[in-house]
Amino acid sequence: MEQGTLYLVPCHLGEDARDNTINPEVRIVCNKLDGFLAENPKSCRAFLKSINLEKPLQSFDYYDLNKRTSDIERSEYISLLKSGKNLGIISEAGCPGIADPGADMVRIAQQNNIKVVPLVGPSSILLALIATGIGGQQFTFHGYLPVDEKELKGKLDQCIAAAQQGVTQIVMETPYRNLKLFKALCNNLPNNFQLGVASNLTQKTEWIKTQKVSAWSKQPEPSIHKVPTIFVFGV
Amino acid sequence: MEQGTLYLVPCHLGEDARDNTINPEVRIVCNKLDGFLAENPKSCRAFLKSINLEKPLQSFDYYDLNKRTSDIERSEYISLLKSGKNLGIISEAGCPGIADPGADMVRIAQQNNIKVVPLVGPSSILLALIATGIGGQQFTFHGYLPVDEKELKGKLDQCIAAAQQGVTQIVMETPYRNLKLFKALCNNLPNNFQLGVASNLTQKTEWIKTQKVSAWSKQPEPSIHKVPTIFVFGV
Repeated sequence: MEQGTLYLVPCHLGEDARDNTINPEVRIVCNKLDGFLAENPKSCRAFLKSINLEKPLQSFDYYDLNKRTSDIERSEYISLLKSGKNLGIISEAGCPGIADPGADMVRIAQQNNIKVVPLVGPSSILLALIATGIGGQQFTFHGYLPVDEKELKGKLDQCIAAAQQGVTQIVMETPYRNLKLFKALCNNLPNNFQLGVASNLTQKTEWIKTQKVSAWSKQPEPSIHKVPTIFVFGV
Repeated sequence: MEQGTLYLVPCHLGEDARDNTINPEVRIVCNKLDGFLAENPKSCRAFLKSINLEKPLQSFDYYDLNKRTSDIERSEYISLLKSGKNLGIISEAGCPGIADPGADMVRIAQQNNIKVVPLVGPSSILLALIATGIGGQQFTFHGYLPVDEKELKGKLDQCIAAAQQGVTQIVMETPYRNLKLFKALCNNLPNNFQLGVASNLTQKTEWIKTQKVSAWSKQPEPSIHKVPTIFVFGV
């Protein structure tokens, strides 16, 4: 029997996404899948509903794929793929496998010679990188930074050194700590650094602004409290 | 008069792209633009033709945006935006602003308080990252590596050190030098590193494979000569 394929299925970055940011291939592929490995099966179903599949939602199998997923469960998913099932990985927002638990599953699939097909879709990291204009020749995404103040300062010092070598730096934070991180960036980055703030990407309320740290420091804080935001900085 | 907006317009990663990898929003936005800043106006027109715009292609203005574009020309583009024109940046392949000349223009637009809107689309870097499964919690894209062998070795040593800290490494090369880079990776990376090779992404001939360096070294070279390829590696 032919093996199944593992598709990486992107979804909206938020509930208020602009129309048509998901391409038709995603809908075509989802219609032919047997099931989904979902970071959150409830929001997976909500996403599938939003793209108006022909196949009824209850005809798909749904499996958890998150921090609590065991190695045994992952092996079971591989067995399903080997037995010919076509599965999709869907994360909470954007492309699976970035800053979420999807990458482990893809790695195991690759080790088992399962075909992996990534579908084109929204990535807040990539959209922030290109729209802030700080430079995409070389860049590093650091994910979530340390919460501890001393550790954060140490990490930012490393980021500053890399930025001074021409590598654009991309960081994020849990949304309710956004303002704390923003202040830490303003206080620790050199005044002549460019700092880009990109929030609510692809949403109707998208807001993207880049200016020097010295300019940000002179203005009221941006309205990013509890708003999904990506920070980009460099020379 | 209201200022115009600068849209970052993604295009196909190659001529043989699978159907529908460009989302409908791209078509909707392009239909309302006044002109395009294009890395290559000829391939820009070919792309616009491929997505079947309602507006005739000759009704748009086309401006060069590449390595030869002068600061004066960039200032003229800003004047157009300030005067109310809506413009799109289109690069040779994928999302503009990554490993191409688009980022400078976005930076100047941000400095001039021009609204910048990034549209969702294909990025070979991002697709390679998620599909090779080496890990997307932290990653660095290095762009093109040095051609000089000694410099290349020095750069790879830095990459190896970062990978050992858990940062996934992404590199690329001019397609006709792909095999040379592949051999350099096999010869220089530790045998137990994961090395992912992602070529012809989103094309009908897409091929993505991740395995340990030791496994690659025992096999014939992959068929990547002159084929657009992204290399991903890590622990």
